[in-house]
Amino acid sequence: MTLTIREAIPGDEALVLQFIGELAAYEKLAHEVVASEGDLRRTLFADNPKIFALIVETKGEPCGFALYFFNYSTFLGRHGLYLEDLYVTPEARGAGAGKALLARLARIAKDNDCGRLEWWVLDWNAPAIAFYESLGAEAMSEWTVNRLTGPALANLAAKDRAHGDTG
Amino acid sequence: MTLTIREAIPGDEALVLQFIGELAAYEKLAHEVVASEGDLRRTLFADNPKIFALIVETKGEPCGFALYFFNYSTFLGRHGLYLEDLYVTPEARGAGAGKALLARLARIAKDNDCGRLEWWVLDWNAPAIAFYESLGAEAMSEWTVNRLTGPALANLAAKDRAHGDTG
Repeated sequence: MTLTIREAIPGDEALVLQFIGELAAYEKLAHEVVASEGDLRRTLFADNPKIFALIVETKGEPCGFALYFFNYSTFLGRHGLYLEDLYVTPEARGAGAGKALLARLARIAKDNDCGRLEWWVLDWNAPAIAFYESLGAEAMSEWTVNRLTGPALANLAAKDRAHGDTG
Repeated sequence: MTLTIREAIPGDEALVLQFIGELAAYEKLAHEVVASEGDLRRTLFADNPKIFALIVETKGEPCGFALYFFNYSTFLGRHGLYLEDLYVTPEARGAGAGKALLARLARIAKDNDCGRLEWWVLDWNAPAIAFYESLGAEAMSEWTVNRLTGPALANLAAKDRAHGDTG
Protein backbone atom coordinates (compact mmCIF):
# COMPACT_ATOMS: atom_id res chain seq x y z
CA MET A 1 0.00 0.00 0.00
CA THR A 2 1.44 3.34 -1.01
CA LEU A 3 1.39 5.94 1.71
CA THR A 4 1.64 9.61 0.93
CA ILE A 5 2.37 12.32 3.46
CA ARG A 6 1.56 15.96 2.87
CA GLU A 7 1.42 19.11 4.95
CA ALA A 8 -2.01 20.18 6.18
CA ILE A 9 -3.38 23.14 4.22
CA PRO A 10 -6.25 25.59 4.76
CA GLY A 11 -9.41 23.61 4.22
CA ASP A 12 -8.14 20.65 6.28
CA GLU A 13 -9.56 22.06 9.54
CA ALA A 14 -12.66 19.80 9.58
CA LEU A 15 -10.56 16.73 8.79
CA VAL A 16 -8.00 17.51 11.48
CA LEU A 17 -10.73 18.25 14.01
CA GLN A 18 -12.40 14.93 13.19
CA PHE A 19 -9.11 13.07 13.75
CA ILE A 20 -8.53 14.98 17.02
CA GLY A 21 -11.98 13.88 18.19
CA GLU A 22 -11.34 10.25 17.25
CA LEU A 23 -7.97 10.28 19.01
CA ALA A 24 -9.54 11.81 22.12
CA ALA A 25 -12.24 9.13 22.12
CA TYR A 26 -9.55 6.42 21.91
CA GLU A 27 -7.75 8.09 24.83
CA LYS A 28 -11.04 8.25 26.80
CA LEU A 29 -10.69 12.03 26.85
CA ALA A 30 -13.41 13.06 24.39
CA HIS A 31 -14.99 15.26 27.08
CA GLU A 32 -11.85 17.45 27.02
CA VAL A 33 -12.15 18.44 23.35
CA VAL A 34 -13.46 21.99 22.96
CA ALA A 35 -11.41 22.99 19.91
CA SER A 36 -13.26 24.40 16.89
CA GLU A 37 -12.38 24.56 13.21
CA GLY A 38 -11.79 28.28 13.74
CA ASP A 39 -9.30 27.57 16.53
CA LEU A 40 -7.36 25.23 14.25
CA ARG A 41 -7.46 27.72 11.37
CA ARG A 42 -6.14 30.53 13.58
CA THR A 43 -3.30 28.48 15.04
CA LEU A 44 -2.29 26.07 12.24
CA PHE A 45 -2.54 28.60 9.43
CA ALA A 46 -1.36 31.75 11.20
CA ASP A 47 1.01 34.12 9.39
CA ASN A 48 3.83 32.81 11.51
CA PRO A 49 2.53 29.47 12.82
CA LYS A 50 4.05 27.81 15.89
CA ILE A 51 2.38 24.46 15.14
CA PHE A 52 2.39 22.24 12.08
CA ALA A 53 0.36 19.26 10.87
CA LEU A 54 0.98 16.41 8.45
CA ILE A 55 -1.75 14.34 6.80
CA VAL A 56 -1.06 10.75 5.76
CA GLU A 57 -3.08 9.36 2.85
CA THR A 58 -3.55 5.97 1.28
CA LYS A 59 -4.91 5.90 -2.28
CA GLY A 60 -5.59 9.61 -1.99
CA GLU A 61 -7.76 9.22 1.11
CA PRO A 62 -6.63 10.80 4.41
CA CYS A 63 -6.16 8.11 7.05
CA GLY A 64 -4.31 9.91 9.83
CA PHE A 65 -2.40 12.95 10.98
CA ALA A 66 0.40 14.23 13.14
CA LEU A 67 0.56 17.64 14.82
CA TYR A 68 3.87 18.96 16.10
CA PHE A 69 5.80 22.00 17.23
CA PHE A 70 9.37 22.80 18.21
CA ASN A 71 10.29 22.48 21.87
CA TYR A 72 13.73 23.12 23.37
CA SER A 73 16.45 21.56 25.47
CA THR A 74 18.54 23.97 27.53
CA PHE A 75 21.00 21.12 28.16
CA LEU A 76 21.57 20.72 24.40
CA GLY A 77 21.07 24.39 23.54
CA ARG A 78 19.00 23.14 20.61
CA HIS A 79 15.41 22.82 19.61
CA GLY A 80 13.64 19.50 19.61
CA LEU A 81 10.57 18.33 17.78
CA TYR A 82 7.57 17.65 19.99
CA LEU A 83 4.80 15.42 18.67
CA GLU A 84 1.52 16.56 20.21
CA ASP A 85 -0.83 14.16 18.40
CA LEU A 86 -0.36 11.07 16.26
CA TYR A 87 -3.44 9.31 14.92
CA VAL A 88 -4.26 6.69 12.30
CA THR A 89 -7.84 5.56 11.62
CA PRO A 90 -8.72 2.02 12.78
CA GLU A 91 -9.24 0.80 9.19
CA ALA A 92 -5.77 1.96 8.15
CA ARG A 93 -3.84 0.58 11.11
CA GLY A 94 -1.16 -2.05 10.61
CA ALA A 95 -0.11 -0.77 7.21
CA GLY A 96 2.72 1.46 8.37
CA ALA A 97 0.98 4.83 8.34
CA GLY A 98 1.96 5.66 11.92
CA LYS A 99 5.55 4.64 11.34
CA ALA A 100 5.64 6.65 8.08
CA LEU A 101 4.48 9.74 9.98
CA LEU A 102 7.09 9.19 12.70
CA ALA A 103 9.83 8.66 10.12
CA ARG A 104 8.83 11.91 8.41
CA LEU A 105 8.88 13.70 11.79
CA ALA A 106 12.31 12.25 12.53
CA ARG A 107 13.56 13.58 9.19
CA ILE A 108 12.02 17.01 9.85
CA ALA A 109 13.75 16.94 13.24
CA LYS A 110 17.12 16.15 11.64
CA ASP A 111 16.60 18.75 8.89
CA ASN A 112 15.96 21.37 11.59
CA ASP A 113 19.00 20.39 13.68
CA CYS A 114 16.77 19.07 16.46
CA GLY A 115 18.47 16.84 19.02
CA ARG A 116 15.33 15.00 20.03
CA LEU A 117 11.88 13.84 19.01
CA GLU A 118 9.58 13.69 22.04
CA TRP A 119 5.97 12.96 22.89
CA TRP A 120 3.82 11.72 25.77
CA VAL A 121 2.10 8.37 25.96
CA LEU A 122 -0.70 7.19 28.24
CA ASP A 123 0.48 4.53 30.67
CA TRP A 124 -2.30 2.09 29.74
CA ASN A 125 -1.79 2.40 25.98
CA ALA A 126 0.19 -0.85 25.65
CA PRO A 127 0.09 -1.11 21.82
CA ALA A 128 1.49 2.40 21.47
CA ILE A 129 4.16 1.80 24.12
CA ALA A 130 5.31 -1.39 22.38
CA PHE A 131 5.40 0.42 19.04
CA TYR A 132 7.45 3.29 20.44
CA GLU A 133 9.86 0.89 22.15
CA SER A 134 10.39 -0.92 18.84
CA LEU A 135 11.62 2.38 17.39
CA GLY A 136 14.17 2.82 20.17
CA ALA A 137 12.28 5.45 22.15
CA GLU A 138 13.19 5.89 25.79
CA ALA A 139 10.47 6.20 28.44
CA MET A 140 11.49 9.10 30.72
CA SER A 141 9.76 7.52 33.68
CA GLU A 142 11.32 9.68 36.39
CA TRP A 143 9.69 12.81 34.97
CA THR A 144 6.07 13.75 35.64
CA VAL A 145 4.15 16.32 33.64
CA ASN A 146 2.65 19.08 35.78
CA ARG A 147 -0.23 21.21 34.61
CA LEU A 148 -1.71 24.44 35.93
CA THR A 149 -5.00 25.46 34.37
CA GLY A 150 -8.39 27.04 35.09
CA PRO A 151 -8.81 29.00 38.35
CA ALA A 152 -5.37 27.94 39.67
CA LEU A 153 -3.72 29.48 36.60
CA ALA A 154 -5.79 32.66 36.90
CA ASN A 155 -5.04 32.93 40.64
CA LEU A 156 -1.32 32.66 40.05
CA ALA A 157 -1.42 35.16 37.18
CA ALA A 158 -3.19 37.65 39.48
CA LYS A 159 -0.33 37.38 41.97
CA ASP A 160 2.08 38.76 39.39
CA ARG A 161 0.70 42.24 40.00
CA ALA A 162 1.97 42.23 43.57
CA HIS A 163 5.53 42.70 42.37
CA GLY A 164 6.77 46.19 41.74
CA ASP A 165 8.62 45.50 38.54
CA THR A 166 8.47 46.96 35.08
CA GLY A 167 8.10 43.76 33.07
CA MET B 1 13.04 41.89 49.54
CA THR B 2 12.11 43.48 46.24
CA LEU B 3 12.18 41.12 43.32
CA THR B 4 12.45 42.37 39.78
CA ILE B 5 11.79 40.32 36.69
CA ARG B 6 13.10 41.28 33.27
CA GLU B 7 13.39 39.61 29.88
CA ALA B 8 16.78 38.13 29.02
CA ILE B 9 18.69 40.27 26.53
CA PRO B 10 21.75 39.71 24.33
CA GLY B 11 24.70 39.60 26.69
CA ASP B 12 22.88 37.37 29.19
CA GLU B 13 24.11 34.16 27.51
CA ALA B 14 26.88 33.46 30.03
CA LEU B 15 24.54 34.09 32.95
CA VAL B 16 21.81 31.85 31.54
CA LEU B 17 24.33 29.12 30.73
CA GLN B 18 25.66 29.32 34.29
CA PHE B 19 22.14 28.92 35.70
CA ILE B 20 21.45 26.00 33.31
CA GLY B 21 24.60 24.30 34.59
CA GLU B 22 23.64 24.85 38.23
CA LEU B 23 20.14 23.51 37.61
CA ALA B 24 21.56 20.46 35.81
CA ALA B 25 23.89 19.81 38.75
CA TYR B 26 20.94 19.97 41.15
CA GLU B 27 19.06 17.53 38.92
CA LYS B 28 22.13 15.23 38.84
CA LEU B 29 22.23 15.71 35.06
CA ALA B 30 25.30 17.93 34.68
CA HIS B 31 26.84 15.38 32.29
CA GLU B 32 24.02 16.10 29.80
CA VAL B 33 24.82 19.80 29.39
CA VAL B 34 26.56 20.47 26.09
CA ALA B 35 24.96 23.85 25.31
CA SER B 36 27.28 26.77 24.55
CA GLU B 37 26.82 30.53 24.80
CA GLY B 38 26.63 30.56 21.00
CA ASP B 39 23.78 28.01 21.04
CA LEU B 40 21.83 30.19 23.48
CA ARG B 41 22.52 33.32 21.44
CA ARG B 42 21.32 31.70 18.20
CA THR B 43 18.13 30.32 19.74
CA LEU B 44 17.13 32.88 22.40
CA PHE B 45 17.97 35.94 20.33
CA ALA B 46 17.01 34.75 16.84
CA ASP B 47 15.12 37.11 14.52
CA ASN B 48 11.96 35.18 15.22
CA PRO B 49 12.72 33.31 18.46
CA LYS B 50 10.70 30.27 19.51
CA ILE B 51 12.03 30.37 23.08
CA PHE B 52 12.08 33.11 25.70
CA ALA B 53 13.83 33.69 29.01
CA LEU B 54 13.14 35.76 32.12
CA ILE B 55 15.76 36.82 34.66
CA VAL B 56 14.78 37.44 38.27
CA GLU B 57 16.89 39.88 40.25
CA THR B 58 17.11 40.94 43.86
CA LYS B 59 18.81 44.27 44.59
CA GLY B 60 19.89 44.38 40.95
CA GLU B 61 21.68 41.03 41.13
CA PRO B 62 20.41 38.12 39.00
CA CYS B 63 19.32 35.23 41.23
CA GLY B 64 17.43 32.94 38.86
CA PHE B 65 15.80 32.45 35.51
CA ALA B 66 12.95 30.81 33.65
CA LEU B 67 13.05 29.60 30.05
CA TYR B 68 9.80 28.91 28.21
CA PHE B 69 8.14 28.42 24.85
CA PHE B 70 4.61 27.97 23.56
CA ASN B 71 3.28 24.43 23.27
CA TYR B 72 -0.20 23.46 22.05
CA SER B 73 -3.29 21.52 23.03
CA THR B 74 -5.27 20.04 20.14
CA PHE B 75 -8.10 19.37 22.59
CA LEU B 76 -8.33 23.07 23.46
CA GLY B 77 -7.31 24.34 20.01
CA ARG B 78 -5.12 26.81 21.89
CA HIS B 79 -1.51 27.31 22.70
CA GLY B 80 -0.15 26.69 26.16
CA LEU B 81 2.93 27.97 27.90
CA TYR B 82 5.59 25.35 28.57
CA LEU B 83 8.19 26.04 31.24
CA GLU B 84 11.40 24.28 30.25
CA ASP B 85 13.61 25.47 33.11
CA LEU B 86 13.02 27.24 36.40
CA TYR B 87 15.98 27.96 38.66
CA VAL B 88 16.75 30.10 41.69
CA THR B 89 20.21 30.21 43.27
CA PRO B 90 20.53 28.51 46.68
CA GLU B 91 21.29 31.84 48.43
CA ALA B 92 18.10 33.42 47.07
CA ARG B 93 15.73 30.56 47.83
CA GLY B 94 12.82 31.02 50.20
CA ALA B 95 12.28 34.67 49.32
CA GLY B 96 9.63 34.13 46.66
CA ALA B 97 11.77 34.40 43.52
CA GLY B 98 10.52 31.10 42.10
CA LYS B 99 6.93 31.96 42.81
CA ALA B 100 7.40 35.42 41.30
CA LEU B 101 8.73 33.83 38.10
CA LEU B 102 5.81 31.39 37.98
CA ALA B 103 3.31 34.19 38.57
CA ARG B 104 4.86 36.17 35.72
CA LEU B 105 4.67 33.08 33.49
CA ALA B 106 1.03 32.57 34.45
CA ARG B 107 0.30 36.17 33.47
CA ILE B 108 2.16 35.79 30.16
CA ALA B 109 0.10 32.64 29.57
CA LYS B 110 -3.16 34.52 30.23
CA ASP B 111 -2.05 37.49 28.11
CA ASN B 112 -1.39 35.10 25.21
CA ASP B 113 -4.72 33.27 25.56
CA CYS B 114 -2.97 30.10 26.71
CA GLY B 115 -5.16 27.49 28.36
CA ARG B 116 -2.39 25.89 30.37
CA LEU B 117 0.98 26.33 32.01
CA GLU B 118 2.92 23.07 31.97
CA TRP B 119 6.32 21.71 32.95
CA TRP B 120 8.00 18.46 33.99
CA VAL B 121 9.25 17.65 37.44
CA LEU B 122 11.64 14.91 38.58
CA ASP B 123 9.90 12.33 40.75
CA TRP B 124 12.46 12.61 43.56
CA ASN B 125 12.38 16.41 43.74
CA ALA B 126 10.07 16.55 46.77
CA PRO B 127 10.54 20.26 47.56
CA ALA B 128 9.62 21.23 44.00
CA ILE B 129 6.63 18.86 43.95
CA ALA B 130 5.29 20.29 47.23
CA PHE B 131 5.78 23.82 45.90
CA TYR B 132 3.93 23.07 42.66
CA GLU B 133 1.09 21.36 44.54
CA SER B 134 0.72 24.45 46.73
CA LEU B 135 0.03 26.43 43.55
CA GLY B 136 -2.72 24.06 42.47
CA ALA B 137 -0.74 22.23 39.79
CA GLU B 138 -1.99 18.81 38.75
CA ALA B 139 0.49 15.92 38.36
CA MET B 140 -0.42 14.18 35.08
CA SER B 141 0.79 10.86 36.41
CA GLU B 142 -0.77 8.66 33.73
CA TRP B 143 1.36 10.25 31.02
CA THR B 144 4.97 9.27 30.37
CA VAL B 145 7.38 11.33 28.32
CA ASN B 146 8.98 9.39 25.45
CA ARG B 147 12.20 10.49 23.83
CA LEU B 148 13.90 9.41 20.61
CA THR B 149 17.43 10.68 20.19
CA GLY B 150 20.89 9.78 18.86
CA PRO B 151 21.20 6.77 16.52
CA ALA B 152 17.55 5.74 17.02
CA LEU B 153 16.41 9.15 15.75
CA ALA B 154 18.81 9.02 12.79
CA ASN B 155 17.70 5.47 11.93
CA LEU B 156 14.05 6.45 11.90
CA ALA B 157 14.75 9.58 9.83
CA ALA B 158 16.55 7.43 7.24
CA LYS B 159 13.42 5.28 6.86
CA ASP B 160 11.50 8.30 5.60
CA ARG B 161 13.23 7.99 2.23
CA ALA B 162 11.56 4.65 1.60
CA HIS B 163 8.24 6.38 0.95
CA GLY B 164 7.55 7.65 -2.53
CA ASP B 165 6.00 10.95 -1.59
CA THR B 166 6.82 14.50 -2.49
CA GLY B 167 6.88 16.01 0.99
